[in-house]
Amino acid sequence: MKKQSIAIDMDGVLADTESQYLHYYEQEYGKRLTKDIFHNVPEAEALPNGSIFKYLYTPGFFRTIPVMAGAVEAVRRLQKRYEVYIVSAAMEFPLSLFEKKEWLAEHFPFIHWHNIIFCGDKSIIDTDFMIDDYCKNLDFCKGKPILFSAGHNAGITHHLRANNWQEILDILDVVPTN
Amino acid sequence: MKKQSIAIDMDGVLADTESQYLHYYEQEYGKRLTKDIFHNVPEAEALPNGSIFKYLYTPGFFRTIPVMAGAVEAVRRLQKRYEVYIVSAAMEFPLSLFEKKEWLAEHFPFIHWHNIIFCGDKSIIDTDFMIDDYCKNLDFCKGKPILFSAGHNAGITHHLRANNWQEILDILDVVPTN
Repeated sequence: MKKQSIAIDMDGVLADTESQYLHYYEQEYGKRLTKDIFHNVPEAEALPNGSIFKYLYTPGFFRTIPVMAGAVEAVRRLQKRYEVYIVSAAMEFPLSLFEKKEWLAEHFPFIHWHNIIFCGDKSIIDTDFMIDDYCKNLDFCKGKPILFSAGHNAGITHHLRANNWQEILDILDVVPTN
Repeated sequence: MKKQSIAIDMDGVLADTESQYLHYYEQEYGKRLTKDIFHNVPEAEALPNGSIFKYLYTPGFFRTIPVMAGAVEAVRRLQKRYEVYIVSAAMEFPLSLFEKKEWLAEHFPFIHWHNIIFCGDKSIIDTDFMIDDYCKNLDFCKGKPILFSAGHNAGITHHLRANNWQEILDILDVVPTN
């Protein structure tokens, strides 16, 4: 039987983008903030001085984002039962294309290039599940949407929510013994 | 009413890849071949000495491919009636990612980044039409497939075929006065 398919987002889902923002901010201003600053605030406005957009356009930003806790092992497990695709909206930041490909090769070398998609919007992606931190991608997706928690989406209540990768495994019924 | 969507391939469809191979071959060996050498031959084997793969991995190859005759004007016309997506299997050649983005920005600046997708395989792309030169992309596509003629697909008979961009416009019923 053909496996069901999952589209998994990168920024804020596989990649701990909030931690990277805080790291870059500390490097620039010498001040360590906490993830609380992202709570219920649009992502681009969470740091002062337009810092978020500046960092997004800084070479190396996407290449060095820390991996989200639990993501590597969870994706390995999901692959046993599902056809896993990585679907990232990389077109807005052309510099990120090569960096994201290299980042995946470093941290998720077990994901074949056949299964990687860099896109603009995700409206023509057709998978059985979509895991993402943004409603703009989930609201009209063709499969079952799962909202991965991030500060900016704290107020969203109309999607099934996973707070971490263990909750994704629970929702998708992937047990540790698999 | 929502526009119908079209996924358009790059290499061999928007981009005249055969001409680029011949140009690179002439630069290297001083010998001008014709497109006849591609007729009914697997693309990778059309030139001797593994030249095709060598060129595909040469920086600059994708950035400088000539535009397929008639493609720019045809895509402009299609946009009036259809939601046009560019869907290119760029993941096999990571160097091509940035070059393909730049190439599109130069020759098709009227295509928004929202509508560009670089992928591995195209199996999770869901559009109403798909224009491609490879059966591996068309045989299982979710919409109506249109085979764009290339030397390597000369023997294929099981898809609706377009020999050039004017025939695409005819098939998709886009008239010059649009």
